Amino acid sequence: MNLIEVNTGIYKKRINKLKLELKKRACGIFVVLKHENIYYLTGFYGKDSGSVFIISPQKSYLLVNFIYLEDASSSVDRNEIEVILYKKDRLKKASEVLSSLKSKKVAVESSEIDHRSFLRFQDMVERSNKNLYCIAGIVESLRILKDEHEIKKIKQACRITDMAFKSILNIPSRKISIMSELLLAVELEKFIIGYGGCGRSFDFIVASGENSSKPHYISGHRPIGKGLLLIDFGVIYQRYLSDITRTIFVNKNAVTEKLTEIYKIVLEAQLMSIQACREGIRCDELDGIARKHIEKAGYGDQFGHSLGHGAGLEIHEEPAVNSGNRTILKENMVITIEPGIYIPHIGGARIEDMVIIGKNGCKKLYNSKKDFTFLS
Amino acid sequence: MNLIEVNTGIYKKRINKLKLELKKRACGIFVVLKHENIYYLTGFYGKDSGSVFIISPQKSYLLVNFIYLEDASSSVDRNEIEVILYKKDRLKKASEVLSSLKSKKVAVESSEIDHRSFLRFQDMVERSNKNLYCIAGIVESLRILKDEHEIKKIKQACRITDMAFKSILNIPSRKISIMSELLLAVELEKFIIGYGGCGRSFDFIVASGENSSKPHYISGHRPIGKGLLLIDFGVIYQRYLSDITRTIFVNKNAVTEKLTEIYKIVLEAQLMSIQACREGIRCDELDGIARKHIEKAGYGDQFGHSLGHGAGLEIHEEPAVNSGNRTILKENMVITIEPGIYIPHIGGARIEDMVIIGKNGCKKLYNSKKDFTFLS
Repeated sequence: MNLIEVNTGIYKKRINKLKLELKKRACGIFVVLKHENIYYLTGFYGKDSGSVFIISPQKSYLLVNFIYLEDASSSVDRNEIEVILYKKDRLKKASEVLSSLKSKKVAVESSEIDHRSFLRFQDMVERSNKNLYCIAGIVESLRILKDEHEIKKIKQACRITDMAFKSILNIPSRKISIMSELLLAVELEKFIIGYGGCGRSFDFIVASGENSSKPHYISGHRPIGKGLLLIDFGVIYQRYLSDITRTIFVNKNAVTEKLTEIYKIVLEAQLMSIQACREGIRCDELDGIARKHIEKAGYGDQFGHSLGHGAGLEIHEEPAVNSGNRTILKENMVITIEPGIYIPHIGGARIEDMVIIGKNGCKKLYNSKKDFTFLS
Repeated sequence: MNLIEVNTGIYKKRINKLKLELKKRACGIFVVLKHENIYYLTGFYGKDSGSVFIISPQKSYLLVNFIYLEDASSSVDRNEIEVILYKKDRLKKASEVLSSLKSKKVAVESSEIDHRSFLRFQDMVERSNKNLYCIAGIVESLRILKDEHEIKKIKQACRITDMAFKSILNIPSRKISIMSELLLAVELEKFIIGYGGCGRSFDFIVASGENSSKPHYISGHRPIGKGLLLIDFGVIYQRYLSDITRTIFVNKNAVTEKLTEIYKIVLEAQLMSIQACREGIRCDELDGIARKHIEKAGYGDQFGHSLGHGAGLEIHEEPAVNSGNRTILKENMVITIEPGIYIPHIGGARIEDMVIIGKNGCKKLYNSKKDFTFLS
């Protein structure tokens, strides 16, 4: 409770910003369903909790079920937000709360409500002479710019990430080679917790040998062996997430010409993108810098994913750094830059950093080395 | 690939069963979006992969993006299923595939598509003179009854769960009391991996002392101490999940009369429910047995969640065992039974088992002891 009380001012400020946005769009009442958005606006974090946050010009309401009642009540500023318990049907309870409010226009977060639930909710809302419609990405459009409180937490998440990776590099090569991918993942998480993180920000990808050719490989019981080792991991620190990838060699005898070549191209592409990354450049332009370099080297078809993504409360958030997104990068956006080349049955290399966009460049959030690395 | 090839017959059988269901509903083409359902029907597992599986009377299609192409191609029986790469817009690609098919009626899984995407998809589908509509829970209605392959995997997941819990009980009380909740969670996962599991089936709840009064508590860095310790955890084994909760005392000196009382009531409620659990009883009836017992003891308001839920490929799946679900339990359904009592600022107790429904009773899937337990 302590930390949250200190921060109360932040949530009020964010809600006021959102209210301004809603006013611009002539939206009276807004129904928030995404748990990260609810946390951003209220300080209550209920992952997959089915909570509902209703913002109206007068008052705000947080609807939670029994499981989250104690937590919600102690997390939010109850002078600003009324916490309401719902028994079974959150949308029914929400429509009851809505019926007592003046405004006739009610928007709901479109990405968070399935088609059938929308129709059911619409039916209930219309009974009290209101209109229900969808809005996409409005809280996300605030969250895309990180404030100082968020940047502090993200930086700490990245510091812990660096420390954990260093601890992995300190494990002797002969020890790592007989560990399973899954065991290395859990050891990594143990380091993270030891350094003050709250665990993993997603299911780690620990991919050894030719498994590294699958960008979203699921780690298994196979011993890591002496070849390639791709580790894509991240940290949770006070709800904020980090994301990093390093590709290393367990033993230098396993290095081949092909793997050296693709590593070099990926690293060049990554450094060129970081070099170009600053306020004013568009996401598709940034993606294009890495992509062109990899294409020129003849590996265009082997780099099939986007260059990067925003990260913060969610591991993938705005802006998507891909060839279809014309969003212009701005100061205090936080993105990953992670080109890769993947050759089925041989292996893959990906190098990923997180950066904060600045006026004249970007600030790298990691110190973890990324030159061609072998364990000793 | 080995395992999957052996199992190919299963997927064909499941798809044929689904086709029969679709025929009954006069549904020509069905679009599957939930990744667990796609795995159940094809053998390809792509968590949050944005894949699309299209079933038509003639042929089936699996649409994946670049990241999952290698995996999908080697996972499915390509005599039965055509694997198609999509670049950016999965719904656009799906509508292109659909336009070449004969049937005029296309159903999509309602829970997996948001309102706005549904409207966009509908628009594209209608351009090729087809109708798009929603179907809810049709694959889930097959998945609710576990087949022998599934039961084998679930049983093994539960065996690993038992072994991991036993390993926790073997840690001396003085050692556990100074470990943080987070560290115990990661040690537990390490045991799971050591016993052949693939990791945790959800974010473990390790709640010490009064933290145990929050049913979905998020573990933290606080040392566990000598009092109550509630551990809600589970295992992934070959995609199948287990779920268990035990509430123990780290040191018997911390036991109070109140906590002894609520533990006893919860245990009685749990045993009575298991006793009554068999083919033919309705979910709401089973929930009522535990609920009435806890209400009679004066703690009705402190048992605010449902008695249990199905488990299998998802940690929460059909049937929901709550007061509003009139589903009749049948042989080979797998559910959890997990009553609890939670007293804010004091603590909570929950005891959870997984069982397979049988004709004349149920089969318990755990051997982990659940009498009032202290560590030594």
